[in-house]
Amino acid sequence: MDNRPIGVFDSGVGGLTVASQIIKRLKNEKIVYFGDTARVPYGTKTRETVTKFSKQDVRFLLSQNVKAIVVACNTASANSLSALKETFDVPIFGVVEPGAEEALRMTKNKKVGIIATSSTIKSNAFQNAIHDRDAEVKVFAKACPLFVPLAEEGLWDDEITKLTVKKYLNELIYKDVDTILMGCTHYPLLRGCIQETVGRDVMLVEPAKEVSVALESYLRENDMLCQGEEEKEHSFFISDRTDMFEKICEEALKKKYTATEIDIEKY
Amino acid sequence: MDNRPIGVFDSGVGGLTVASQIIKRLKNEKIVYFGDTARVPYGTKTRETVTKFSKQDVRFLLSQNVKAIVVACNTASANSLSALKETFDVPIFGVVEPGAEEALRMTKNKKVGIIATSSTIKSNAFQNAIHDRDAEVKVFAKACPLFVPLAEEGLWDDEITKLTVKKYLNELIYKDVDTILMGCTHYPLLRGCIQETVGRDVMLVEPAKEVSVALESYLRENDMLCQGEEEKEHSFFISDRTDMFEKICEEALKKKYTATEIDIEKY
Repeated sequence: MDNRPIGVFDSGVGGLTVASQIIKRLKNEKIVYFGDTARVPYGTKTRETVTKFSKQDVRFLLSQNVKAIVVACNTASANSLSALKETFDVPIFGVVEPGAEEALRMTKNKKVGIIATSSTIKSNAFQNAIHDRDAEVKVFAKACPLFVPLAEEGLWDDEITKLTVKKYLNELIYKDVDTILMGCTHYPLLRGCIQETVGRDVMLVEPAKEVSVALESYLRENDMLCQGEEEKEHSFFISDRTDMFEKICEEALKKKYTATEIDIEKY
Repeated sequence: MDNRPIGVFDSGVGGLTVASQIIKRLKNEKIVYFGDTARVPYGTKTRETVTKFSKQDVRFLLSQNVKAIVVACNTASANSLSALKETFDVPIFGVVEPGAEEALRMTKNKKVGIIATSSTIKSNAFQNAIHDRDAEVKVFAKACPLFVPLAEEGLWDDEITKLTVKKYLNELIYKDVDTILMGCTHYPLLRGCIQETVGRDVMLVEPAKEVSVALESYLRENDMLCQGEEEKEHSFFISDRTDMFEKICEEALKKKYTATEIDIEKY
């Protein structure tokens, strides 16, 4: 057994949707969450910068004595996971592989769409993860840079969002995909609008659910699960105060938490 | 005379619209531009974080031996100008005061709208700058968080942008403002859409033009203008590579430039 907490980091507060999936599945575990709200977003930045920032995020979580780390941010998972694994001696889980595997389980016509930030799409990480497992699957990738600001503006069911969803996703519908992988932590907030546009027959895959399954298997196999029945106190850290923390926290975790501010550039 | 360059900094590449106004007006001067593309945007972040980043930006420009600094970023001007002036011994110009003065010259019915990022609006800097000069003017401020991502997506004349402009600006039209101050460097890129929505009778004020006038007066009065007729080489620095630099540079400066990447966290 290992009673240390699990570290989760994200470029901002979107990763709280990932933390919520882990908390739901691993009720005995304690989470330390870090959101890099001072430097958000990562999705428009280069691989080098995303990797540099991600290393600082991991160093901070290690200072909190975590036993494993989940890279909730799809952009960081797609661009920096292998660099992080090479640099740090702690089990690190990204959202790309579990997301790709779930998309492959779901698709029947072997046509999969991927929607994500520009940086994630450019990295080809999701595309490669799918093709490494099944070279016959046709993958159609589409960067959707406006989805994050729309989600952050709270326009989860607005005419502007519907028009934007149509603009980005029409070409995927035209390609006849039966599964769309939502490769960004913010996108589940727009799930209603997206599902309405692509139609009920298209499956929307959320990697967050799958990463908590992978994490649980690993901890179980390595005898690293938390023991004891007492209620676990999660901790939340951010690099800049933002009203969005409370807003998304309540939406994703159904509970009010307070976040502590830290200077991430020191790590 | 003083042949050192003028420093200009912004949270990203939007400030190139300000650099272009300075270059147009002060043909003899050399510009050193820094865009903090690794940490962009500033407009959603707190005053403390914006001030910390801005101080690093100034320290970098001082390392380039500049004789004066223009804070092109409205968010940094609104939140951090006084802190910068207290900290550094170099003439520093913000865009708030010149913008406010121009809006006051333009308005006839004394009803002025201000559109800017959330952080700029929250700072009350534009509102205070107007009321300090004329307490009778009615000011209506509106944060427009989607304008920057829409401008960066290049949707300068798209249906989505028109719908968003209407959503944000309808209440200003309803208040009968005759002048709108565009308090963000990106907004001039959406000028067409904005003008169409508010109507031809509403004046749109761009602080960038006014700051170059203020800068010229200062340099002239203090005998700090550049001498010599040779063509000036401007320099451009960014903290992360981005395709947007070339795109906005060509649009704003009508010329191709290359930017050098630096690590701003070292300053």
